[in-house]
Amino acid sequence: MDSMTPSGINRRALLSTLAMAPALSSLLRAIPATAQTRATDVPLPSWNEGSAKQAILDFVRTTTDQSSQSYVRPEERVATFDQDGTLWVEQPMYSQLVYCLDRVPAVVAKRPDLRNVEPFKTVLSGNREAMAKLSMKDLEKILAATLTGMTVEDFNAEAMKWLETARHPRWQRPYTDLTYQPMREVLDFLRANGYRTYIVTGGGQDFVRIYSQRIYGIPPEQVVGSAGATKFGYGKDGKPLLTKEPRLLLNDNNAGKPEGIHLMIGSRPNAAFGNSTGDREMLEWTDAGAGTRLSMLVLHDDAAREYAYGPASGLPDTKVGTFTSALYGEARKEGWPVISMKNDWKRIFAFE
Amino acid sequence: MDSMTPSGINRRALLSTLAMAPALSSLLRAIPATAQTRATDVPLPSWNEGSAKQAILDFVRTTTDQSSQSYVRPEERVATFDQDGTLWVEQPMYSQLVYCLDRVPAVVAKRPDLRNVEPFKTVLSGNREAMAKLSMKDLEKILAATLTGMTVEDFNAEAMKWLETARHPRWQRPYTDLTYQPMREVLDFLRANGYRTYIVTGGGQDFVRIYSQRIYGIPPEQVVGSAGATKFGYGKDGKPLLTKEPRLLLNDNNAGKPEGIHLMIGSRPNAAFGNSTGDREMLEWTDAGAGTRLSMLVLHDDAAREYAYGPASGLPDTKVGTFTSALYGEARKEGWPVISMKNDWKRIFAFE
Repeated sequence: MDSMTPSGINRRALLSTLAMAPALSSLLRAIPATAQTRATDVPLPSWNEGSAKQAILDFVRTTTDQSSQSYVRPEERVATFDQDGTLWVEQPMYSQLVYCLDRVPAVVAKRPDLRNVEPFKTVLSGNREAMAKLSMKDLEKILAATLTGMTVEDFNAEAMKWLETARHPRWQRPYTDLTYQPMREVLDFLRANGYRTYIVTGGGQDFVRIYSQRIYGIPPEQVVGSAGATKFGYGKDGKPLLTKEPRLLLNDNNAGKPEGIHLMIGSRPNAAFGNSTGDREMLEWTDAGAGTRLSMLVLHDDAAREYAYGPASGLPDTKVGTFTSALYGEARKEGWPVISMKNDWKRIFAFE
Repeated sequence: MDSMTPSGINRRALLSTLAMAPALSSLLRAIPATAQTRATDVPLPSWNEGSAKQAILDFVRTTTDQSSQSYVRPEERVATFDQDGTLWVEQPMYSQLVYCLDRVPAVVAKRPDLRNVEPFKTVLSGNREAMAKLSMKDLEKILAATLTGMTVEDFNAEAMKWLETARHPRWQRPYTDLTYQPMREVLDFLRANGYRTYIVTGGGQDFVRIYSQRIYGIPPEQVVGSAGATKFGYGKDGKPLLTKEPRLLLNDNNAGKPEGIHLMIGSRPNAAFGNSTGDREMLEWTDAGAGTRLSMLVLHDDAAREYAYGPASGLPDTKVGTFTSALYGEARKEGWPVISMKNDWKRIFAFE
């Protein structure tokens, strides 16, 4: 996939082709500098030297070196990434939940019977304190009302429009600006070394697929997430339609992550990245495979540049991104490198 | 994916890189002949000239020509293929069903309580006439007993072993030899033009994924099929396990095909190939997209070289691969080219 982009493949492919064509090899120096310079030539530039960066470099070296016992054939190279809190900001609230709450007025405008019914009444009140107290069951009602009942195209158009206008409350920037630059470099580095990079998110698969290509270079088919059923049918004009249904096919959290990986990818990842207890089973499943494996955790310990939360950072637990002390203990026991945002990352965002 | 293979990308990438490097462009003629010769240089060599072949050539030309109004960007190029009867032989019985029947003795050996219970008793009797009369419900019991209850690795190992030893009753060859050479050329031709090729099969996803890379060059993650749930857990040694469960997540037939495509691929195919009523909704969904689309049907009308079956071939309907007169009528009405195995294909199999 990524090799389709001109900057992605040409130099590497050219080099290997030249190696097969001795008559041309002496002309290597004549290639313009632009064709030789790639972001991945110096991998992970936003990372400080340290054990986390070294673990990534070592993993890629040993799994792509044909003389290594841990060599992995290109067609078998798979790396999976949790999204919220691993590839972009998840505090103070998952962006998709913000989307669903923002959609409530439009839904109620079409269905006035919901105006005085909970939990819609509370959301319409705008009372943030009351909204923060909504139960899981309340949230499920809001998700069902705002994420289902429309065609897949209508959903895509609505969510896309929201993404263009919504702003994160702290940085006043689009959510899509709030990806972690060091993790984008990990995606680039793995892809430059033949890995297919997947998002494996507890969030909605359809929601993440809207922007994954644009912000991570990850196409829709490489996004595995919590997924609802769709229903095939025909519109009034006889044209086929796919409508989003309020029936969950895959809850892509905890045990659902390895189950979703089997369903959607069909092979065990060689590397996996997460940041919370919801990623634990994916990291375990990855780590238990034969050969060299890499399971890593992002620790949010940088209140100044991003956030610090969860017991592993020495702070109380939060509703989102629970990095418990038990998970931290497992990481130490299993030898999963933990990434300290504060110490391992030179910068957090591309706009800094 | 396919661009990872040396023969897949090098020449094309070299050409585009050379175009950017004027100092090298005059040396194009110096490339050794081997680097210039590719199977796809003369596309579809096993096809006779005719409207079916022309439809494929025209589709690829208009969707990959940047000056065309129907141009499709590389990252959006998706083509889907039914498997049984479209990419390989489905008569006289789906290969996976043969696998399940062949597995019954091993299952009964481990679970003697099933020996005198139907439908296992009938299968053990070896009475082919009685087996042909088994109901759908009986078959489901056999599928559940032979395809679930084991780890995903154990299933893969068992199915792989069977594939190596099983022989098709007519040709006395492994089932994996019985792929249609002309369709493999369509897969190659589309991939050489930037299309990702997917199998979208009513058969079991896990079963097809075992051999798809080897026989079609299609990796596991590009196989969408009927899929059961798995359950994540831990073995006695504490190691994580994924166990196949008798719970259907996706029945990838009829309406399930576009629904499965949305779940697993997340975008509408530009081209789709099928051969039976089970593919109808996939062809409709593909055809209804904007721009140039290609929906095609393989007609089994060659009893001498393969099989002739179904009303559209002038013969009575069969249990597998139902190409009804109604589907034939829809193809004519919608302008879906129908591929006549007898007239459009120079040869059927690679071994001929």
